[in-house]
Amino acid sequence: MSEFFNLTSPVEASKYMISQLAVISEETVDTKKSYGRIISRNYQSFDSLPPYTRSSMDGYSVRASDTYGASDSLPAYLEVVGEIPMGTLATISIKSGESAISHTGGMIANNADAVVMVEQTEISESGLLEVYKPVAVGENIVPIGDDFLKGRDVVSKGQMVNEGIIGSLLTNGFTDCDVYRKPIVGICSAGDELVDPVVKPKLGQVRDINLYTIAAACETLPVETKLYPRQKDDFQQQLEVAKNSISECDVLIFTSGSSVSSRDLTSKVVESLGEPGVLIHGLTVKPGKPTVLGLVSNKPIIGLPGNPVSALTIFDIVAKPIILGLAGLLDTYHRPSVSGNLVENVASLTGRTDYIRVRLYEKNNEVNVQPVLGMSNSISVILKSEGYIEIPSDVSGLYAGTKVQVFLD
Amino acid sequence: MSEFFNLTSPVEASKYMISQLAVISEETVDTKKSYGRIISRNYQSFDSLPPYTRSSMDGYSVRASDTYGASDSLPAYLEVVGEIPMGTLATISIKSGESAISHTGGMIANNADAVVMVEQTEISESGLLEVYKPVAVGENIVPIGDDFLKGRDVVSKGQMVNEGIIGSLLTNGFTDCDVYRKPIVGICSAGDELVDPVVKPKLGQVRDINLYTIAAACETLPVETKLYPRQKDDFQQQLEVAKNSISECDVLIFTSGSSVSSRDLTSKVVESLGEPGVLIHGLTVKPGKPTVLGLVSNKPIIGLPGNPVSALTIFDIVAKPIILGLAGLLDTYHRPSVSGNLVENVASLTGRTDYIRVRLYEKNNEVNVQPVLGMSNSISVILKSEGYIEIPSDVSGLYAGTKVQVFLD
Repeated sequence: MSEFFNLTSPVEASKYMISQLAVISEETVDTKKSYGRIISRNYQSFDSLPPYTRSSMDGYSVRASDTYGASDSLPAYLEVVGEIPMGTLATISIKSGESAISHTGGMIANNADAVVMVEQTEISESGLLEVYKPVAVGENIVPIGDDFLKGRDVVSKGQMVNEGIIGSLLTNGFTDCDVYRKPIVGICSAGDELVDPVVKPKLGQVRDINLYTIAAACETLPVETKLYPRQKDDFQQQLEVAKNSISECDVLIFTSGSSVSSRDLTSKVVESLGEPGVLIHGLTVKPGKPTVLGLVSNKPIIGLPGNPVSALTIFDIVAKPIILGLAGLLDTYHRPSVSGNLVENVASLTGRTDYIRVRLYEKNNEVNVQPVLGMSNSISVILKSEGYIEIPSDVSGLYAGTKVQVFLD
Repeated sequence: MSEFFNLTSPVEASKYMISQLAVISEETVDTKKSYGRIISRNYQSFDSLPPYTRSSMDGYSVRASDTYGASDSLPAYLEVVGEIPMGTLATISIKSGESAISHTGGMIANNADAVVMVEQTEISESGLLEVYKPVAVGENIVPIGDDFLKGRDVVSKGQMVNEGIIGSLLTNGFTDCDVYRKPIVGICSAGDELVDPVVKPKLGQVRDINLYTIAAACETLPVETKLYPRQKDDFQQQLEVAKNSISECDVLIFTSGSSVSSRDLTSKVVESLGEPGVLIHGLTVKPGKPTVLGLVSNKPIIGLPGNPVSALTIFDIVAKPIILGLAGLLDTYHRPSVSGNLVENVASLTGRTDYIRVRLYEKNNEVNVQPVLGMSNSISVILKSEGYIEIPSDVSGLYAGTKVQVFLD
């Protein structure tokens, strides 16, 4: 057994695993369809955007100095020498005393240095433009390169694509983009007491839900999931399925029964799959102590604990950063959080990190944080809570009133 | 023109629109594949779960009173009368002085009222169980119904399915579930200056990105999107596309050019589509004032402003709640937020709600909130920010140091 860690902290464990991963290959996709993917190279602007000085209002291109001192009672009078239609090059130049009709998003007239909003003007009976308010140089115009300067970074390797990135790539003309291939996450399930959810369990059996809650937890990640048929606590059968799945997938997750024998079997299977095998057996964490982490030909293998809350907690704390690291994401540990006031004492043991599920409610304009402690840590605890707090391993509990950070589901 | 609101607040506007929506139809889906869908009826447990008192540890079923006073130096001695294997009914009853091997998740012996962890026991040479630590009644066992009591609400109409809901439905045997049909969101784009992102824009033209950033913003919603071909500022052409799309979709979004004429055209098209037509023309909001909201045969129509930041802001503030309301979600206004310290004065006008894009950074263990103010409010502002703050209409600006709520993207 190559196992060289025993009872490691969850963050150490996932960091070590991420350091061991092979780099995943890349592919080119339509930028419009790249939402949620991980960018695999840096992109810089080819040109400055906007490529010309643009009006940000409907109104008139002017020379700002012509408007100084203008007011309702004493407007500035300017000649309107023409119009710059949308979508055309400005062929009109203005000189002092002149103006040109300009549209939002359109070019301003050559030699203009500001735009007067149409609302602050009127056309006099003699056909002259009356300006009722002065504008400063640069007012109501957008200078060249205000959005992107030529050569500036648009997006970088390791970023996850969102609306802003799609818009920024497209506006710079990158209609295709290079992203990492979606890793295939294989999920295997085993345990003598587990039955398919469609089956009414006999006494002593339980419906297998971890297989599906873990698959659901993968839904928002840039991965494909592949679910394998549920196995009994039988070494040969499990090994066969595992061998097949490790050849088809980039990462393997085992959800097993909650008995010690079931968990030991997972560990034996990982050990028999190939080198180096099990790396970490047991984490200094609650819930989730009986977690198994291994590698087989640089593919991570994660044996989750059998309890539904433990399985989802370890997935979130340990498996998710590993999977996101494999998927090429740079910032694998970021998760949205809010801070609030703990409303109950929470006990913890030093030497292990505790994750406590909590629900949030507002009271007197403050976020209150209520621990949700189910005896069995069964799935209804997840249903009743919106996230969790972390109690570090060097802290022996938290008092009511402590300001805590809540990591949201 | 049936328009009866002019310059309404964004929340009033979306609430009014939601009140006008038709109810969307339902469908039955595989619970395992229901992630992100909206539940359309209430579900109650058929049976209590667990349906029997379960051991939460590997160890021995005992009568707690038999262990009172037990210690390392003076263990309690109990006879081991058998084992309750995983996945089977407990046929063993114990009486005082007896114990039975029990597994995590398995049944406890009849008449037992606690479980002793295996770690706190040894088997003596004579074959008796030595218990080194007393257990209380109820210790290490999970009572009937601890997860779900028979008849208890599991999930309710209007909830969005997540991991916890999938697990809770499946553990209760609901392998299918009723959800609302995904509304089809049609997205139309028009504007003389807009070109496809693949085209290098001539001077005065811009790449059309709103069509795709809005489609991307729909990716995490329980909807289907349908993109229509980009149109010029031509009333007849636009009306034809709009007629076609309103017949194919449940909600229609127009992204148009940023000129007044382009926006007025959107409004004219909505007006000509059917009754009641335009309901709200202009919102008391910045950015996003030139928003158009309408209804045609109970289908919502949303004309977004042309500026990229304005379009995404109004999508988030106004369109998203309407779409989620149509999709059947109950809590349509919830969005994750964090609080932090504003690091700069921000000006605002009373009488309108201001949304300011911000980026976050940590300093001295506090979240600092930095406004990202682009001159043009172009897409790079979205790229550089992580969310926004809201300045209510009765506030004329915020000073640096103010505690603000940041709504995260």
